[in-house]
Amino acid sequence: MSFFRSRWVERPAHVAELEPTALPAGFRAAGVAAGIKAEGLDVGLLVNDGPVHVSAARFTSSALLGAPVVVSKEAALDRLRATLASSGNANVADGVRGLETARAAQSAAAAGLAVESYEVGIAATGVIGRALPRERLLAGVDSAGAELAADSRAFSEAILTTDRAPKRACLAVELDGGQVRLAAQAKGAGMMSPSFATLLCFVETDAALSAATLDLLTGVTVKRSFDRISVDGQLSTSDTVFCLANGASGVRVEPETDDELRFGEALDALLRQLALEIVSDGEGCERIGRVVVRGAWHLVQPVARAVANSPLVKTALHGADPNFGRILQAAGQALAVHGGGGFAVDLEVEGRALVAGGEGLELSADDWRALEQAVRAPEVEYALAVPGEGGEAEVFFSDLSHGYVSLNADYTT
Amino acid sequence: MSFFRSRWVERPAHVAELEPTALPAGFRAAGVAAGIKAEGLDVGLLVNDGPVHVSAARFTSSALLGAPVVVSKEAALDRLRATLASSGNANVADGVRGLETARAAQSAAAAGLAVESYEVGIAATGVIGRALPRERLLAGVDSAGAELAADSRAFSEAILTTDRAPKRACLAVELDGGQVRLAAQAKGAGMMSPSFATLLCFVETDAALSAATLDLLTGVTVKRSFDRISVDGQLSTSDTVFCLANGASGVRVEPETDDELRFGEALDALLRQLALEIVSDGEGCERIGRVVVRGAWHLVQPVARAVANSPLVKTALHGADPNFGRILQAAGQALAVHGGGGFAVDLEVEGRALVAGGEGLELSADDWRALEQAVRAPEVEYALAVPGEGGEAEVFFSDLSHGYVSLNADYTT
Repeated sequence: MSFFRSRWVERPAHVAELEPTALPAGFRAAGVAAGIKAEGLDVGLLVNDGPVHVSAARFTSSALLGAPVVVSKEAALDRLRATLASSGNANVADGVRGLETARAAQSAAAAGLAVESYEVGIAATGVIGRALPRERLLAGVDSAGAELAADSRAFSEAILTTDRAPKRACLAVELDGGQVRLAAQAKGAGMMSPSFATLLCFVETDAALSAATLDLLTGVTVKRSFDRISVDGQLSTSDTVFCLANGASGVRVEPETDDELRFGEALDALLRQLALEIVSDGEGCERIGRVVVRGAWHLVQPVARAVANSPLVKTALHGADPNFGRILQAAGQALAVHGGGGFAVDLEVEGRALVAGGEGLELSADDWRALEQAVRAPEVEYALAVPGEGGEAEVFFSDLSHGYVSLNADYTT
Repeated sequence: MSFFRSRWVERPAHVAELEPTALPAGFRAAGVAAGIKAEGLDVGLLVNDGPVHVSAARFTSSALLGAPVVVSKEAALDRLRATLASSGNANVADGVRGLETARAAQSAAAAGLAVESYEVGIAATGVIGRALPRERLLAGVDSAGAELAADSRAFSEAILTTDRAPKRACLAVELDGGQVRLAAQAKGAGMMSPSFATLLCFVETDAALSAATLDLLTGVTVKRSFDRISVDGQLSTSDTVFCLANGASGVRVEPETDDELRFGEALDALLRQLALEIVSDGEGCERIGRVVVRGAWHLVQPVARAVANSPLVKTALHGADPNFGRILQAAGQALAVHGGGGFAVDLEVEGRALVAGGEGLELSADDWRALEQAVRAPEVEYALAVPGEGGEAEVFFSDLSHGYVSLNADYTT
């Protein structure tokens, strides 16, 4: 099956899929079981062997930051040589002790790789408010350092929590200057919101890019991917994206060239498909939706997020219920807060007009049956027009199922 | 069992409970089955027989208003003589036809009671975006008019949708001038948010109050009750509270007197307990929480609502899981949006300090067991201190259970 399995992401013509666990030239990775989780791999290490070391990073916007985020933000984020990730415990709200644990892990990884601590980015995901077992983590860092290999298999498993499966891909990207590789490993299944999602994502490429170019491309593509998804509207304390580039391919991506555009398209498709995998792997998710809102620029974002975050819309999506009244209700709530004035919206579900100017349209029995059929698909699209012009916003969202309740009612116990 | 069964509401000493379906002197009510719902009573009529007719009303703040809300807002809201309610179809997003149906029902009730249309308030609850069957509603209005009686039994049932049971009470309130009665019937189980809840509530009293006094007391007590609850964070298109007073007791409640205070205390206790019944009857609800946030006035409301609306907090409440990290996560998300700056919070759960200055505290094994026991109770209290001073906000909220998903995944089908 193709990595690009959503109808909402197209594989660019100049992109080919490689083995999903492959890595670009000059990268090694490892994943080990350190006992932070009850079972499974839980400490991962990713190393950029050069020849150059360029990086970019993005983090959660929560006011409550995990200790790994605090420590990583103090690192040399434009020239990281390695990243360390652990799962099972997010190391959040543990005060000075949590910061010390994060710094100790960063230093241990740096020492093992003979680099500086500020050249190592760190990330963690898992339960909040419990002490992360420092000795286990440090032992895991040492073990991982001894197992580095030229594929992402174990690393991509070590970053998971409630994910159903690893999320990873490796692409070959044809540029004018030659072929480069672009790979990523992501994690995320809950505590996600369109304002960035609870996720860890590690991106590697053997293209040669300046730090400024990599930062620009990372920012733009994260905004169009992880920034546009919602599982439960909850913003994590630990969201982290690291992009690493090493130039090992010898192919240079210069600013404002066709190659930059083509590389950016590949990165965009990669991150969008990974974001959709996170949504469809949303805790208990069985069906995913895309809402596109057009209208005044200050209205489209809050309306799209209100629809995507509404538990009533999510349960209707889960039940394959064409209950478009809940879309209107969510839009009405957001428009009231954000000054949408009168309530004249148009709504299409799977290309069928259901509401025009705020009024429900009559559907023939045949149309209604076709609609009921359409909302049973694995991906359902909603298009909403609100007052005004010039703005457009999309959000991808998971349904709300019994699985979500089961997973989250018992997560720490 | 006492009506005042929550530990968060005290019965004032001057208040006694009467039969819950009793009505104050000078009120009659009825409920009939008109076929709007597949089964059960679905049209209710409530009449104030005087001698005077004073009223107050509050409505949803959604930008999308149900036709009954639009029509009621044009009525003489300070001197209503009757209210009409129907359930099963909210009459929302049906355009001109929906407005005509609402006006026709208002007129039919008025004609049957020989009053003016603008003296009748109307309300409806149920599915959004479907045409309300006009002829059935009008036939129901006629039937209800023929069955008016001096109790609220059938009326309180006719306003329900997914509610597990009627929510109603009748109180005797001792004032200096003598005894008055105060009754209410409420409805609500889903699509609720702290900014008013999806609910219908009808309040009757035989006290004599000016329209201004009744409006003042209604506003204050609605703010402290229905405005402070969350089932799923979703604001309804149809929320409506009507308060009717007729002076039939001959006891006058003058502004700025002890009697006004005592009457207000009774109304406050009545509406708060009804609001808690709505939360605990929240779709699928098995346990309810109260979050109290203290700190800067501009932070306490959004933080309290973020905690109360978080599906992660709600599932943890459901699972009796003392996962306080999710409280911190929700607070962190809200503080980031509302400018809370640094993240130094204190958190107590059921009176036990778990976090101080943003850091998790060590709990002894005994304390942890006691906490685990405490969060298994039917009501769980969270107290959060955020930066700043002077503000305090509380929100009551339901858990998120399998029952919510089951009810809402299949609601229209």
